[in-house]
Formats: sequence, structure tokens, C-alpha cells
Amino acid sequence: MSVLVVGSTALDSIKTPYRENPRLLGGSASHAAVAASFFSPVKLVGIVGEDFPRRYVQLYRRHGIDLEGLRTAPGKTFHWAGEYEVNMNNRRTLTTELGVFETFSPILPTAYRQAPFVLLANIAPALQHHVLDQMRRPRFVIADTMDLWLNIALPDLLKLLRRIDAFVLNDGEAHQLTKEDNVFAALRKIHKLGPKYVIIKKGSHGSILSGPNGFFLAPAYPLHRVVDPTGAGDTFVGAMTGYLASARGPLDTNLRRAIICGSVVASFCCEGFGLNRTTKVSRAAIDKRIRDLEKLVRF
Amino acid sequence: MSVLVVGSTALDSIKTPYRENPRLLGGSASHAAVAASFFSPVKLVGIVGEDFPRRYVQLYRRHGIDLEGLRTAPGKTFHWAGEYEVNMNNRRTLTTELGVFETFSPILPTAYRQAPFVLLANIAPALQHHVLDQMRRPRFVIADTMDLWLNIALPDLLKLLRRIDAFVLNDGEAHQLTKEDNVFAALRKIHKLGPKYVIIKKGSHGSILSGPNGFFLAPAYPLHRVVDPTGAGDTFVGAMTGYLASARGPLDTNLRRAIICGSVVASFCCEGFGLNRTTKVSRAAIDKRIRDLEKLVRF
Repeated sequence: MSVLVVGSTALDSIKTPYRENPRLLGGSASHAAVAASFFSPVKLVGIVGEDFPRRYVQLYRRHGIDLEGLRTAPGKTFHWAGEYEVNMNNRRTLTTELGVFETFSPILPTAYRQAPFVLLANIAPALQHHVLDQMRRPRFVIADTMDLWLNIALPDLLKLLRRIDAFVLNDGEAHQLTKEDNVFAALRKIHKLGPKYVIIKKGSHGSILSGPNGFFLAPAYPLHRVVDPTGAGDTFVGAMTGYLASARGPLDTNLRRAIICGSVVASFCCEGFGLNRTTKVSRAAIDKRIRDLEKLVRF
Repeated sequence: MSVLVVGSTALDSIKTPYRENPRLLGGSASHAAVAASFFSPVKLVGIVGEDFPRRYVQLYRRHGIDLEGLRTAPGKTFHWAGEYEVNMNNRRTLTTELGVFETFSPILPTAYRQAPFVLLANIAPALQHHVLDQMRRPRFVIADTMDLWLNIALPDLLKLLRRIDAFVLNDGEAHQLTKEDNVFAALRKIHKLGPKYVIIKKGSHGSILSGPNGFFLAPAYPLHRVVDPTGAGDTFVGAMTGYLASARGPLDTNLRRAIICGSVVASFCCEGFGLNRTTKVSRAAIDKRIRDLEKLVRF
């Protein structure tokens, strides 16, 4: 089944202690859509400026991503520039130029409105609402977010939590939202805000799924070297949703495997700048790492 | 088979935002020995002063711990006082009174020297060496440590690493020892220092076993509330070693299950002050949490 992905479509300039990479394809929707495309057909909703490189449109196309919902508007594409420290954990934003994103208000093509799976990737909660308003009874809605929206759009985000099936956030955001240091205590509070399923991302420490059938403790795929973690969280939720849309059987069982797919595709994402590594991944390479993870946690 | 445990035997005064608990039974050897005793017979090596409460000797006895190697010397028992912050992650030492521990030089009873499993719990590396010097070809030697010894006794510790089968340390210590931010890169370097097996503890994020057959990613048991984490690391390595000494079959397979036993008994340790909760645990309760963990990681 198909997945509708809405989020940011951007150009990222990423500086690390080792390299500078100007104007890579980035944005939450780009990472999530490419990741989801390994498992299911994807419909992308987003906006780019007239400066958006043709090669990036071709990249989306190579992944079979439906671009009917990608608008090109007069002006410049959203541009983010950031810098990582040596340990790759601390990120500093150098520039944020919203460009055409500033006035973005997604209008879904008719064919998009019946997509059964909806991924509201990281973007202002008001836009996530706006997309949901246009959908015709989707089967499963999952939303991602970031600390920025907890700071400046909390009421919108809280309203959104009552409209979605699954909510994805990282451990820092879970703490910020609930004031709970203990992640399991935080999960309990987040469920009370609405979502039946909550997934907490802990970076290299893996992730936790919490749902009506209890917890699932998911490992991150072990990496000896992280080249660029930008977009790993978007990739995680993208692959997760893509897998879910492709799987038959009970949702609870599928969600566990979906999270493992998320971990694996996110591990590839971290091995290259921007989408460089992710776009070159084969389904066989993904399946190999899934089998690796099975062995890595067995006892 | 039996496990020889050497380490500190102490009185711990533990303050948290919720309670003060003066002069609890503590020390790395106390936690490790009690944890190991759920699985195998334990021989304790340590020293206490004349102020050491009789009830703590009785506690050791209730766990069937052989106390022939526990010396009572004129003077006071090692006393540590510390304080935890609200989030239970940051610990501050208030007092360290070495007492009889200052001049401790363990002499093993003859019956101890043939113990097949040796756990060198956290204590000065020179004392860990001294115990090893007295052993007759043990089958398996595992050592724990702490940041203090990396700071003040690194040459002794490095020498020790060439004499042991398995080394246990936490992620902060692994970084301190290798200057590697990436835990898998750090593991590679630690193996080069000697130990065939390395276990990195990551607190609530679980632990990683690294050995000739690759990695094992072990979860921590999910806890909604941590009462007092003091001794959790000692408990982890104690239960691990106790299980190993009790298990038949290939070491590599046993080590995975041993680490899970460590996670589980450590989770009980965190649910009470000092050894209060750990001493009340039944083998059935341990086995129940092991089965829980099996379900929590399955996909």
C-alpha cells in the first residue's frame, strides 16, 4: 500500500570536522520518502524553489517517488546549514533560510487523499494538521516532530497527538514534553496525550516502542564510524512507515519489524553525507543487516 | 562451580532527594557476591572493621557465601557516603573513609585458590593482581574497574588486562581509556590491550558484549522508577559471573545469557536502597524477568 509523506524538502550544507558538503538534498520529507521507497510506493508532498537542482528531482524519480504533490514555487528552496563537532553528537545550526517554505500550505492532489498510510514527517504541526484535514480516513497516521515545535507550537502539537496513531520523538524531546527523566515514565504520560503507539528514538542506543501490548526494545545497528547523522531520524520513521505499509498481518507484530527496518536504513544514512549512502542501498543489503540484528540480540 | 569474589566490603550512606540511608551494606564485593549467589556457590575475599554489623555477616550467610576469606581487622569498616540528584544519574561523593581497607592485602585461604571462576570486582588493580597471583590456574577470570583506577593506577590496570579473560567497564570509562567516542571503535582498541571478551555497560541503555564471535547487544530491564542505582554495576558483573559458573556448554552462548542475568539482577538492585531489594529476590522472580526480556527484544 502507498505512503503519503509530507515534510520539508530542503538543501542542506553540512560541515563536519572532516569535510564540507554544500547544498546536499535534505529535509525531513526527502530522507523519509527515500527510506520508505525501499518498501512501498511513496507520494511526496513538499515545496521547492526554482533553484532546486534537476538531479535531485531525478533522484526522487529513481526511487519511484510520486512527485505530483511536489510544488515548485518562485523563490529559493529551504536551505539549512549546520556544523557537527568531532564526536558527531553536538550539532550547531549556522543558517536557516526558509525561502519558499515560509508560505508553504500543502494542497494534496486528489489521488493523494486516499493514501492508506500517512507519514507526517518533521514540519510545523499546523502543516501536519492541514495535511490530515485533507485525507480521507487513512488507515494509519504516524507523526514525527522536533524540539523546535515543542518550544514554539506546543498547543498545535498537543492537538495533533489526539489525531494520530503513532508518535515518534527522541528521548530529549520526551523529557521536554513530560518533564520525566525516566523514559518509561515519560511514555506513560505521552500515551495519555493521545497516541496508541509511541516510539522513542535514542540514537546509537536504539529505540523503544510502546503500545497496547507493552514495550519493544529495539537495538540500533552497530556502526564503527558515523559520517553524517543528519536525517537519520527522518530515515528511521520513513523506513518504518514504508515497511508497515508493505506488511500483512497484525499491526503490533509488524511494528516491531518496521522499527528494525528503520534502524537499519538509518544506519546506512549515517554512513554517508546527506542521502549519498541511502540512495545507493539495495533491498538485499537492508535484509542482510536485519538478519545481522536478529543475531546480535539473540540469547 | 564456585566463584571467588574479591572487592570492597563497605558501609554506604546514601542520600537521594527522597531519603537518607546511613550505613547500608555496600561495596563492590558485597553487591557482586550476593548477585552471584543466586546462581553459584560464592567465596568472598574482603576486609571489615570491628564496627561491621553482625546482621550483615548474617546476610552474607543467608546467601550461602563462604566467609573464610573475609577478615575482621582492628579499626573501622570502609565507609562511603554519597548523594544522588533528582534524575538519579549524577552522583556526588560526600565522604570516603578507607578505614581497615587502607592496608588491605588479601591472603586467600587454601580452599579458595582452586576456585574455577574469579571475579575481580572493582578495587585497586594492585589488589586484583595480588589475588590473581595466588590462584591456581582458574578457568575464567573477569575484572571490573572504575574511572578512579584509570586516573591513578593506569599502568597496573593495563598489566591486569593482559591477565584476564573478560573486562567490564562502562561507556564513559571506555572513552577515557581509548579516547574513542564511538563505542565499537573503543571496543576494538580494548581487545588489543588483552581481554578476549569485553563488556561495556551503558546503564539504562543496556550493555554490549564483544568477543571472538562478534557483538551481543543486551537490553537493560525497563524500570519505571530507580530508587538507588548504587551497586548496580557490581550486581551486573556478579550475576553474570555466577550464571557463567553454573552453566554448561559453550562459553560464547553462556556469556549472552549471563549478561541477561546481570541486567535482570541489576534491575532489582536499582529498585531498593543498597542491597535491600536484591537480597529479597527469588530465583523465580529472576527467571520471570529473563523471560520478559526475551519477549521485549523479539522481532
